[in-house]
Parts: sequence; structure tokens; C-alpha cells
Amino acid sequence: MRLVNKQEILAQIDECAALAEIEEAFRTFARGEAQVAPVTHLAFPKADGECHIKCAHLGDDEVFTVKLATGFYGNQELGLSSSNGFMAVVSAATGMPLAILLDEGALTDLRTALAGVIAVRVGARRGSTTLGVIGTGIQSRLQAMLICRQLGFSRVVVWGRSPDKVSAVVEDLKAEMSDVSVSQADTVEALCAISEVIVTTTASREAIVKSPAVRPGTHIVAMGADSPGKQELEPALFSKASHVVVDSLDQCTEHGETANALKTGDISRSRLTLLGEVLLEGGLDRAEEDITIVDLTGVAVQDAAIARSVWRKLKQAELQNH
Amino acid sequence: MRLVNKQEILAQIDECAALAEIEEAFRTFARGEAQVAPVTHLAFPKADGECHIKCAHLGDDEVFTVKLATGFYGNQELGLSSSNGFMAVVSAATGMPLAILLDEGALTDLRTALAGVIAVRVGARRGSTTLGVIGTGIQSRLQAMLICRQLGFSRVVVWGRSPDKVSAVVEDLKAEMSDVSVSQADTVEALCAISEVIVTTTASREAIVKSPAVRPGTHIVAMGADSPGKQELEPALFSKASHVVVDSLDQCTEHGETANALKTGDISRSRLTLLGEVLLEGGLDRAEEDITIVDLTGVAVQDAAIARSVWRKLKQAELQNH
Repeated sequence: MRLVNKQEILAQIDECAALAEIEEAFRTFARGEAQVAPVTHLAFPKADGECHIKCAHLGDDEVFTVKLATGFYGNQELGLSSSNGFMAVVSAATGMPLAILLDEGALTDLRTALAGVIAVRVGARRGSTTLGVIGTGIQSRLQAMLICRQLGFSRVVVWGRSPDKVSAVVEDLKAEMSDVSVSQADTVEALCAISEVIVTTTASREAIVKSPAVRPGTHIVAMGADSPGKQELEPALFSKASHVVVDSLDQCTEHGETANALKTGDISRSRLTLLGEVLLEGGLDRAEEDITIVDLTGVAVQDAAIARSVWRKLKQAELQNH
Repeated sequence: MRLVNKQEILAQIDECAALAEIEEAFRTFARGEAQVAPVTHLAFPKADGECHIKCAHLGDDEVFTVKLATGFYGNQELGLSSSNGFMAVVSAATGMPLAILLDEGALTDLRTALAGVIAVRVGARRGSTTLGVIGTGIQSRLQAMLICRQLGFSRVVVWGRSPDKVSAVVEDLKAEMSDVSVSQADTVEALCAISEVIVTTTASREAIVKSPAVRPGTHIVAMGADSPGKQELEPALFSKASHVVVDSLDQCTEHGETANALKTGDISRSRLTLLGEVLLEGGLDRAEEDITIVDLTGVAVQDAAIARSVWRKLKQAELQNH
């Protein structure tokens, strides 16, 4: 078995190829050809920490993936990253562990951001160029960069609870993307007023984006609610939305934004569409004035796609060296 | 993070200490002081394979454990072990993976056999010396050896579907234990007729031990039913048993022998006792003629106990070397 460190892993990543592979994984999932285990959650309240484990096998692939991801939010005070973990690549023919990709959360960060790109692409109004990003963590930066780079957005507005952290995000994005206009919004309402696409990336436990603030035609991608108790959108938004897309029916109705809206009665199960189905149909059939929502909780098929891709490249490189 | 191979792991094992630690883990679990995630099952029918993932955190321990265990039953034809996997030791303070114990299933085999020893000790009639073992795999050998070594049994009878495989087990046990009388039973009934304790270790999917064959006073430990669809005991045995002990209420009622007996109505939930509770009470309060059953599905607290023990010893050795 091979232990692969973060640097070696990142050297194998081709962003465009990974994007295509994750898209295909969502399609495989929608066709019912992926084995996805229920997510395991562990909680470490004393250390403000959590761990989740996601496992998937795509189609008849030669490997399956078991991912362990931790978020310990006191780590920053210790000078450590709050995200950690690894992806284990295991043979689906013999059950032998083949590789531990010790990505320290980097592959999860990337596959999460790439799902954001996909979710924006399938649902945004044609010609959208202004992106509003809510939150100031790693996903705030990654989503903004990847959405601009992959989909040609030319303007980014950022809002978060801490103005200092927002400034830091704005500086980082400006440094990374000289051709994109990046600015700070003073309020969520101000951000909503100019954004054609809104991506929420916080760990909030109460609604940040309120229904009245959202303009007709807005496409919202909410990706913060990855475990029970989290919330970024006011449930009333769901009753205004023409389309609600979920990355996983099980997960979104259990702990996503959708779960909150189901509880308040602002959405019914029958109105949910799976992201992979939308991809199979070539995108959302939306009108100009529609409000559309994609609820992303993060599905193990994304992990399986990106881990398999890294593992295949490592194997190829090994063969070439021998 | 450290990658530890099977040899290094086995060098850290002290059987008696591990037995005490696993007992204590069952007590911790019974006191409600362990975090145990639901077991994740993945199936690979084309390769006759399965994978399960078990996670636990004991009390306020500095680490928690995530175990991946695979069983691919066509591997033997390829000259490979059917069992594989690893245990990941993760910091409960920072979420950082600390070690991957690449035990290839050896720690699972050991903790499973040690639970068998515990299950026999808490429930067998005082003075029992004859053990009947059903099955011819690794657990058949390990349970027989550990129960004799730890509890002083002096006679072992083995039965399995394949007489050749039984002969091999008998030869192996004779070679390992010169002071124990080891023999082959021609039928399950013959085994039941002379055994004071019966341990079942097969992957059977239908009842092997039938109710009429079991004598009063017999203590039965069933450990084969570790995933849905498996069965070793006739459910009617449960209605004859004075005590039914389970290693986990959730798991045993979901996929253990107990699940089968619940379905047939031969047992009710209210008659089940947790193994850890029996340990807290110092053993089963049984009469001479009682038939007693322990249903073992394998609980993540056992993995957490044995992995933590190995990890602590490795850390200690490291400190001594520096």
C-alpha cells in the first residue's frame, strides 16, 4: 500500500479533467450506478470538532474510496489547519487497500469547489457575470476562483460577518485574478442586489440569505449545510424558487438546506431534482425571472471520482518509471 | 502520520492486556460513554466481497478509531488473504490522522477472538472444560486457542461442513496446544452432545445449530452473523434461553442472530442484555440447567480499544528511542 502526501497528490491534479470526472460521477449516481453509503458523523464537542466518513463505488470501477474528513475549529489557535483527513483507495476486486491519499482536506476542498462550478453552470441564467460569495473561508476563495476561471465570471462581490476577513478574501482574490473585479459588500442585501449568482459557503446555523433580498433571476448555490443543524438560506426562498436541485436526495433531505425547508413546508420532496439528472438533461430549463436553488451537501461520488483520478495517474507514472 | 505494518503491530500486542482493555471498552460502551457510529456496509457481489467501516471514540480518549475491514472470498483462489483492511488512529483533539495501522485484518481477528473469550467467561457454567467450535476459518482456530489459554478449557471438539478443513483445524490446534485434547465431531449433533460451551464462527446464511440438539446448561457464543443475511442458530433456541446477551443492541437487532429471532418472535427486545452490562454486574446470574446465548456482531469499541493500545505502545517506544 502506498502513502501519498499532499504535495504528490496536488501534482496529479488537472482541474479541467477533475471537473469532467466529477460531473460524470454525478451522472453515474443519478443513473443509480453508484454505491454510496450513508454518511457517518462523529462529534467532538469539547474540541469543537467533527469527523465525517463518506464511501462510494462508481459503477464497475476497479477501486472504491473511503474518505475521512475532520474539521476541528479550535485548530487555528494552535497554528494548525482546521481541515484534515485522507482518502483511502481500495481495490474493488480484492478488498486490498491500495493507497492512502493523505490530502489533509485538499481533495475535499477541490471537489467541493468543483461541484460549485457545476452547480453554477447548470442553473445560472445564460450570460451571468456577477458572482456574490458569502463566507470567508477556504471555500469562499476556491469557489470564486474556480467559477471565474471555469465559467468566465468577471465580477465578484464578497460578504461575511467579519469585515476584516472579507478584506483578506478580497485581497487574495485580487492577487489571484487580475482580470476580475473583486469588491466587498457592506451587507448581505447589498450583495444580493447586484449578484446574478450567489454562492454561500459558511458554517452558519441560522439563515443568512433572506427571501425578500433575493432578486428574480438569481441562481443560488448553498454549500455550507454539510451536517445536521447548519443553515444559510431562509426556507421561504424555497417556495419562491422555480427549481430546487439537490446533490443527494438522502443527504439534502436529512441535513441540507432542503431539510429546513421541508420542515417549514416551503418545499415538498416531489419538487426536488437530483443534480445528476439535471446534468443528464443538459442543464436546468429555467426562465429569465426564475429563482433557482442548488443545495450541495457533498456526495461520496465526488470523492470517489477525484481519488480514483489521482490514483490512476500515480499508477501510470509508476508504470512509466519502470 | 505513521504507517505501521502488520509485523510492527503484532509486536506491540500483549494478549492479556488487550483482553482487559476490550473488557473495559465494553463497560465504557454500556455506561453510555462511548461514541459508536452506525456500521457502514458496502457490497461487491461480483467479486464475492464486502467492506465494513466501524468508528468509535471511547470516553474522553485522546484518539478515536476508524476501521476499514474487507472480506473478499475469492481471494484465496488468487493466493491472497480474504481479510484485509486497516485501522486509522485519529486525534480527538485536532482531527489529525496519527497512524494507519495496516493490520491486514489481524487486529480485527484478535479483538473478535478476545470478545469470544469474554463472552464465554461471563456466561459459561462454572467449571466448564469442553468447548465445541463450529467453523473452520481463522476464528475457529483463534477462538479455540484463546479460550483454552485464557480460560483453561482442556478439550476442544470441532465441526465444519468440510471434513478436510476440520482435520486441518484439528491438526493446527494439536500442534499449538499439546495439553488440550482436540478432536473432530462427525455431526453438529455429536458436537452439541458433548460441549458445555459452543462457539459458532461460520459465514453461514442458514441455521446450523438446531434447538433440539442443544443440551440444558449449554452456553452458546455466536459470532458469525456480522452482516445482514447471516445466520448460525435456529431462532427457536432463543425462546429456550434463560439469558440472551448482545454486544450491541443496535447491531444485534439489525443483523445479528438476535435479528432473526426477533423476526420469528422467539425473543423480544426487553429480554436482551448488553454484554457490557453483564460485565459491570460481574457475569451472568445463571442456573446450572440454563441455556444461555451471547450474540456477537463486533463493536467498534473493540477496535478503538485495541488500536489505541497499539498506538500508545508505539508512541512510548518512540519516546524511549529519542
